[in-house]
Amino acid sequence: MKIAIAQLNPIIGDLSGNAQKILVAAQNAVAEDARLLLTPELSLCGYPPRDLLLNPAFIQAMNRTLQKLAQDLPPNLAVLVGTATENLQASVNGGKNLFNSMALLLDGKVQKTFHKRLLPTYDVFDERRYFEPGSEANYFTLDGVDIGVTICEDLWNDEEFFGKRNYAAHPISDLSIIGVDVLVNLSASPYNVGKQDLREAIFQHSAVRFQQPIIYVNQVGGNDDLVFDGRSFAYNHQGELICRSRGFVTEVVVVEFDPEQQDLTLGNITPQYQCEDEEIWQALVLGVRDYARKCRFSQAVLGLSGGIDSALVAAIATAALGKENVLGVLMPSPYSSQHSVDDALELSNNLGIKTQMLPIGELMAGYDKTLGKLFTGTEFGLTEENIQSRIRGNLLMAIANKFGHLLLSTGNKSEMAVGYCTLYGDMNGGLAVISDVPKTRVYSLCRWLNRQGKNLVLNSVSSNGMCQSTEIIPHHIITKAPSAELKPGQIDQDSLPSYEILDDILQRLVCEHQSADQIVAAGQDAVVVDRVMQMVARAEFKRRQAPPGLKITDRAFGTGWRMPIASNWSAIKNSDRTQYIPALNADIQGKASCSSEN
Amino acid sequence: MKIAIAQLNPIIGDLSGNAQKILVAAQNAVAEDARLLLTPELSLCGYPPRDLLLNPAFIQAMNRTLQKLAQDLPPNLAVLVGTATENLQASVNGGKNLFNSMALLLDGKVQKTFHKRLLPTYDVFDERRYFEPGSEANYFTLDGVDIGVTICEDLWNDEEFFGKRNYAAHPISDLSIIGVDVLVNLSASPYNVGKQDLREAIFQHSAVRFQQPIIYVNQVGGNDDLVFDGRSFAYNHQGELICRSRGFVTEVVVVEFDPEQQDLTLGNITPQYQCEDEEIWQALVLGVRDYARKCRFSQAVLGLSGGIDSALVAAIATAALGKENVLGVLMPSPYSSQHSVDDALELSNNLGIKTQMLPIGELMAGYDKTLGKLFTGTEFGLTEENIQSRIRGNLLMAIANKFGHLLLSTGNKSEMAVGYCTLYGDMNGGLAVISDVPKTRVYSLCRWLNRQGKNLVLNSVSSNGMCQSTEIIPHHIITKAPSAELKPGQIDQDSLPSYEILDDILQRLVCEHQSADQIVAAGQDAVVVDRVMQMVARAEFKRRQAPPGLKITDRAFGTGWRMPIASNWSAIKNSDRTQYIPALNADIQGKASCSSEN
Repeated sequence: MKIAIAQLNPIIGDLSGNAQKILVAAQNAVAEDARLLLTPELSLCGYPPRDLLLNPAFIQAMNRTLQKLAQDLPPNLAVLVGTATENLQASVNGGKNLFNSMALLLDGKVQKTFHKRLLPTYDVFDERRYFEPGSEANYFTLDGVDIGVTICEDLWNDEEFFGKRNYAAHPISDLSIIGVDVLVNLSASPYNVGKQDLREAIFQHSAVRFQQPIIYVNQVGGNDDLVFDGRSFAYNHQGELICRSRGFVTEVVVVEFDPEQQDLTLGNITPQYQCEDEEIWQALVLGVRDYARKCRFSQAVLGLSGGIDSALVAAIATAALGKENVLGVLMPSPYSSQHSVDDALELSNNLGIKTQMLPIGELMAGYDKTLGKLFTGTEFGLTEENIQSRIRGNLLMAIANKFGHLLLSTGNKSEMAVGYCTLYGDMNGGLAVISDVPKTRVYSLCRWLNRQGKNLVLNSVSSNGMCQSTEIIPHHIITKAPSAELKPGQIDQDSLPSYEILDDILQRLVCEHQSADQIVAAGQDAVVVDRVMQMVARAEFKRRQAPPGLKITDRAFGTGWRMPIASNWSAIKNSDRTQYIPALNADIQGKASCSSEN
Repeated sequence: MKIAIAQLNPIIGDLSGNAQKILVAAQNAVAEDARLLLTPELSLCGYPPRDLLLNPAFIQAMNRTLQKLAQDLPPNLAVLVGTATENLQASVNGGKNLFNSMALLLDGKVQKTFHKRLLPTYDVFDERRYFEPGSEANYFTLDGVDIGVTICEDLWNDEEFFGKRNYAAHPISDLSIIGVDVLVNLSASPYNVGKQDLREAIFQHSAVRFQQPIIYVNQVGGNDDLVFDGRSFAYNHQGELICRSRGFVTEVVVVEFDPEQQDLTLGNITPQYQCEDEEIWQALVLGVRDYARKCRFSQAVLGLSGGIDSALVAAIATAALGKENVLGVLMPSPYSSQHSVDDALELSNNLGIKTQMLPIGELMAGYDKTLGKLFTGTEFGLTEENIQSRIRGNLLMAIANKFGHLLLSTGNKSEMAVGYCTLYGDMNGGLAVISDVPKTRVYSLCRWLNRQGKNLVLNSVSSNGMCQSTEIIPHHIITKAPSAELKPGQIDQDSLPSYEILDDILQRLVCEHQSADQIVAAGQDAVVVDRVMQMVARAEFKRRQAPPGLKITDRAFGTGWRMPIASNWSAIKNSDRTQYIPALNADIQGKASCSSEN
């Protein structure tokens, strides 16, 4: 039996468009003699639909679209379609109104519906907000083959693999007791670095443990902050990888189940990416391309400072949208160095993108004049630095508004963590392209990019690379000391620890939930750890107002980071914090929220 | 037996400070001869602690603080303290690592721990993200009195009252079967209009149904977007209200349980507010005061346009922080009318607040000059309107930065809904004071305010009202046609339906989840409904970057509104949306995200 995997890229809420994508995939599957077509979790509405699910009219429309799709699908092809269905017992038994379901479509009708049993409610996931967990083991029989149906998280509960049980229910164990021939897992699993290795390790472990062939299907595409990487795969019952589809592209691939061998047979295995940088690059390019496309933008604008962050974002945007669709804006101030302008122009030339030069000195003088009387007797400081950044932010938004461009912001994760960025200034944008990329990774990505050469960027959309050099990011941008250039001679390390140290502390603090004591025990200086923790806590108000940023790590600021702003906990000096003498705490958290900034 | 209710105002995460507050309340309770002290849900860390709960060091510190508090409390007083506790069986049984618990402290020790059974995971609530539900009915015996313990949502599952069951478990029914003498409900229930009536109706129903005296304790204070209103109360077993504490203030009150009568005896009942406007006013004033205080600001700044929104916010800020701590900034442009300046000055004079005048004409000319070449051949439009708003936003942030003031933004809910506001312009601020107040309610609040007279505003913090007139909001501000004054002769209704119509549509769409068909059936024009729905969908990217806004309705934009940005569903023309012809959908959702705006 041939089973087709449709690695689809839906638009959230676009029921008719997504149904059309399933229909096209079904036609491809039939052309390949498939008997069964698998689509990702919630393939009809796209994942995550978020609060659209609270709209009864949306649920009704989804059901009508599903019924019509069942009628329009080719005969003799069974199709599993992801959809939300009503929990008709909710008002009697208590519980949420919906299930996260897979519908089996065959012979013009919805034949059966299966409900997801394990509902992730952590990080970016909010499934308990909408769904009631299913209580039954899910399977169906097609041409004598018993097919077990699981949805995403349903297979992420192998206590042998994790060393702990994540949920009380155990869907694969239940199906193993029932005894099915092959297991399918329909997923919408967002990308982060290392995620594919983890997925394959879990599924391989489960295949061997339960002697069960498993086919895993993943959504692909960018949906706001989340990038889905596809890379669907299958294991035979011995835990041998027999298929892996490509990453970050839509694809229909076919695997075959041999009823005599009672196993999946060897298919096509796409190799893994060579390094994390390559994988992250693909994720960021797709994230930008899809955000723009799904919001109906064809062109993007960004500020080019001559620094490494904006250089990387310009390269990503060029690969995502084509060099003819990217506008880089240089906005030098009297504090900008000539090399910054030169570096930005060299980068633009390497990429072949358009540029505009809008010096901001006169506008700075204008603000100085307007505010002069009020600010009499005060010294040049963060306020004046922020004004420069906000002038640039306004100019970029004016261009975005006037020409209908998408403004891309260029701040990295290290800056966002400690608040080394200006709210309503360089944070402006519709999408924060690298806001989950630590600064040390920004360097690593740029070096990798230069090793790949120009074709990687330019071939993605357009073709005629003009320059001879293969370097994309000018060498000087990578080697010079990073600087915001908001006052004479300023460099980042005047205000921050080295990025190697900062990123190590942030990784432990943000991603691994380590305490100050643990981070110090790992070798970091206590004073620096203390200071970084205070900076992270104080920057919460800025992050709350940041644009969506593409998630590439275990834990990104954004949907999966839900911190209070007005709070008084920064995990500092734990041993002191059981002393309840309020006066002692007064200086632990300084002023937050729209006042002091860089 | 005397039972004290501590209606506390914690700072999120300030474990030592919150423990100190409980200790002071305990001393007050002892002075009143109380045997038992009740504190709100999660009183040790404050509600909602959000992702601080994911930090193991935070949980450890909470436990240490709890143990120390137990030792320091007065002898002979039993105290129920809200705290998160570890689920020690999580790794074996599956499930979340924590419980949302109440600890019974007595005789220097934690005697017993009770776990919340019903975990709200809707609107602003994310409790399934952190907590495992408790599985047992909770009670303890003190001096022979059996006391049932429930936590907030535990009592929001009366299927007779709601006409449906919300959860499978039924804590009050379980306790009724066991048979307890009195029931306590320790809550952190955020304010919205009408919430207190709903709470009292539910609890009265349950008291009568289960013949059970109930004491309800609520947190008070503003925590970011949420304002907790206190108004703790108690019902006897006949469903008679026997106590209600004050709204929006901390308070320790005592109720008495008579073991002979097996019932609560009549205590002090604070009257309800006279109207919704009064209640909302109190909520907004406390929300601003606490956000400022908990972020360690003493002074606020806001832009005064001469319009009604900024007038209301100025009055709220004055009541919250004192007239000497509020700075109103007038930033007239060449399009500003003289009456706007006059109205703003009259308002400032009425309130006694400081003002600054910073005309923006020269800065507008500066941007025109800088962008002139690039914008050659284009017409004055939204871009130029947005530039004005962003110049003002920058000036306000410069003042906030320079002097350490909290910037308050002044946009109302109707504007935020349809995107009639400028991102990085008038949306700038640390707190969006009235972003959940519909425009029609802004008018109603201002009229109510003028009926109350000046003392309401000025007496809250400072005392020497200067002016003779009792009017706070100048009459002309209320009666003139609302205008953004971003181009000559502009009024809001050039771009928007009347606010009466708009607010009715928004109430149905945002709060009641009605479909287009339902809203039209309720009497609204189909074309207008369609247009409003499109505007709401297209403004999602702006709302995502808005500051936290004080929630006063059933459903506010912010924490409880989680919509995708890059999506293609706007609930329009439902009947057409099962047609999956992608081309037809291309114009349904226009460009979103940092481009076209007002």
